[in-house]
Amino acid sequence: VIPLESLALRWRDRGLEILDQTLLPDREVWLEAGDPRLMVQHIRRLAVRGAPLIGVAAALALAWYGEMGASAASLVEAAGELRRARPTAVNLMWAMDRMTALLETGAGSAELSLEAAAIFREDVALCDAMARHGVRLFAPGETVLTHCNSGGLATAGIGTALGVIIRGFQAGRVRHVFVDETRPLLQGARLTAWELARLGIPHTLITDSMAAILLRDGRVQRVLVGADRVARNGDFANKVGTYGLAVQARYHGVPFHPVAPWSTVDLACPDGQAIPIEQRDEAEVRGQGDHRWAAAATPAFNPSFDVTPSELVTSLVLDRAVLTGAELRAGGLEQLA
Amino acid sequence: VIPLESLALRWRDRGLEILDQTLLPDREVWLEAGDPRLMVQHIRRLAVRGAPLIGVAAALALAWYGEMGASAASLVEAAGELRRARPTAVNLMWAMDRMTALLETGAGSAELSLEAAAIFREDVALCDAMARHGVRLFAPGETVLTHCNSGGLATAGIGTALGVIIRGFQAGRVRHVFVDETRPLLQGARLTAWELARLGIPHTLITDSMAAILLRDGRVQRVLVGADRVARNGDFANKVGTYGLAVQARYHGVPFHPVAPWSTVDLACPDGQAIPIEQRDEAEVRGQGDHRWAAAATPAFNPSFDVTPSELVTSLVLDRAVLTGAELRAGGLEQLA
Repeated sequence: VIPLESLALRWRDRGLEILDQTLLPDREVWLEAGDPRLMVQHIRRLAVRGAPLIGVAAALALAWYGEMGASAASLVEAAGELRRARPTAVNLMWAMDRMTALLETGAGSAELSLEAAAIFREDVALCDAMARHGVRLFAPGETVLTHCNSGGLATAGIGTALGVIIRGFQAGRVRHVFVDETRPLLQGARLTAWELARLGIPHTLITDSMAAILLRDGRVQRVLVGADRVARNGDFANKVGTYGLAVQARYHGVPFHPVAPWSTVDLACPDGQAIPIEQRDEAEVRGQGDHRWAAAATPAFNPSFDVTPSELVTSLVLDRAVLTGAELRAGGLEQLA
Repeated sequence: VIPLESLALRWRDRGLEILDQTLLPDREVWLEAGDPRLMVQHIRRLAVRGAPLIGVAAALALAWYGEMGASAASLVEAAGELRRARPTAVNLMWAMDRMTALLETGAGSAELSLEAAAIFREDVALCDAMARHGVRLFAPGETVLTHCNSGGLATAGIGTALGVIIRGFQAGRVRHVFVDETRPLLQGARLTAWELARLGIPHTLITDSMAAILLRDGRVQRVLVGADRVARNGDFANKVGTYGLAVQARYHGVPFHPVAPWSTVDLACPDGQAIPIEQRDEAEVRGQGDHRWAAAATPAFNPSFDVTPSELVTSLVLDRAVLTGAELRAGGLEQLA
């Protein structure tokens, strides 16, 4: 096993581990994740999350299972379970498709491990390529706004949208980052603020409902977000709240950019309406245990994602190109394939 | 003392009490609030909140202080402290102006108590009048959306926006209510959902960031919100998140109505830019104690209110009239005075 390590994933001789993202920012606890059934649980409860990262993590878990001597039939079954762990992010299906395609050629555990490692390293390179493209968007001194977490905790590399922002800061073009807390699970408050603090990047946490007044007051020059699935026409799913933020950006004339690697593009999906949206436990909205604020019987709505139409996209930053909303609607993604 | 009682306020022979709204929905604890300095603390920490209610509560606290034998000078000083307890809601200043004007005529404690009781009863009547006007807005079977809490916990009566919704339900015109949780302090989740459950009104709790997709999908026919101060031109301040919701309603073609009693109108305030916006503790955004999610050092932005321009108002429901956005901009409020 060739060691691999990212902000939230470790692949070493002694096994595969994930950083439990539900405990950040206060506690950094690493969990074993080699057994694919364990990884399914980690993915479901968001201990490991972020569209690109769950694809990489699932591939590594499958590879580890192969190293442990699992049969081809067991590996195919495990790939299916991993594939179904979350329905919206397409990267998970993409990674499982790559691994099962290899299995079908009769590949052994060494080849599976090499393939999983390749998926990991490719993700790092895709992040670098997105950042290279994305940094060119910024004029010097911009303040930007982001939603959820799309950084090193969401990928094997520097990130998608947050990666672009981080490199923009390092290039002297991004001055300040406003971070949407991202209810219900607060990935902005817990994860993005933690990543920015680690890197010494000035930032301010806001409730999701405050973004509108910052955009109105000219305090934000650009909005960047990740994506969990990009349909053929450029519509994309991302963390719930992204659509509303896109509307605010449009209303206030502020450029709005999803950032995603090619593994997030699903050409088989014609448009946003065809993207399945995961519904999660209502308790995430009303709170639970000692952290419950609404009455336990209060009904709640909890789609984990929403869909933003390409009409609201200024440009989509990919690893291989930057496409404007108009280019997306004119079939630009198919031409890139 | 003539007993007065509302959902969150009790004025009896043995004193003045407020329901501690910070402990809802799980605990209903009543606190002594007769001493004006105690009432200032209750108002500051939002144990008693809602623009109309804090005006009524402050007037009763001042009256109680008079009943206890406070001198005119002490009463004037206490009125000043109450007046400054929160800066945005104008009802507090309006109620204190009424009480101090009476004091200046040499009024005694009995007259002060009668005046405070009159403010209480007028607020109940203003709520009824707003509801009477507001109910006419609804077509049968509407689903509505509201932000924060503007019901019986925010007034001495049935409420402002939520009062209209409650009477709309009772009249068979409102079928379902979506409730914005209203970060950071979750008044929607804690208070509005509690009020609706008490009354058996079907409702669904959402994160503030989910409102946009409900409006897009045609699942909400009307948005109603309260107001903490309405400027002469119809711009108004309300709980942070209201402006963004108004933008979403406009973008999706859904009618948007602030609802407020005349005591919330500040004709001395020319427009929204002149409304002072209270900035509250950053810890309300990042969490605190056992309920902290962001790192303790994370900088946060926490304006308690935002300003919505009258351009985004379909109509303003007052106790004395309903004015369209165009009527507001044409000086309709001054003509009503």
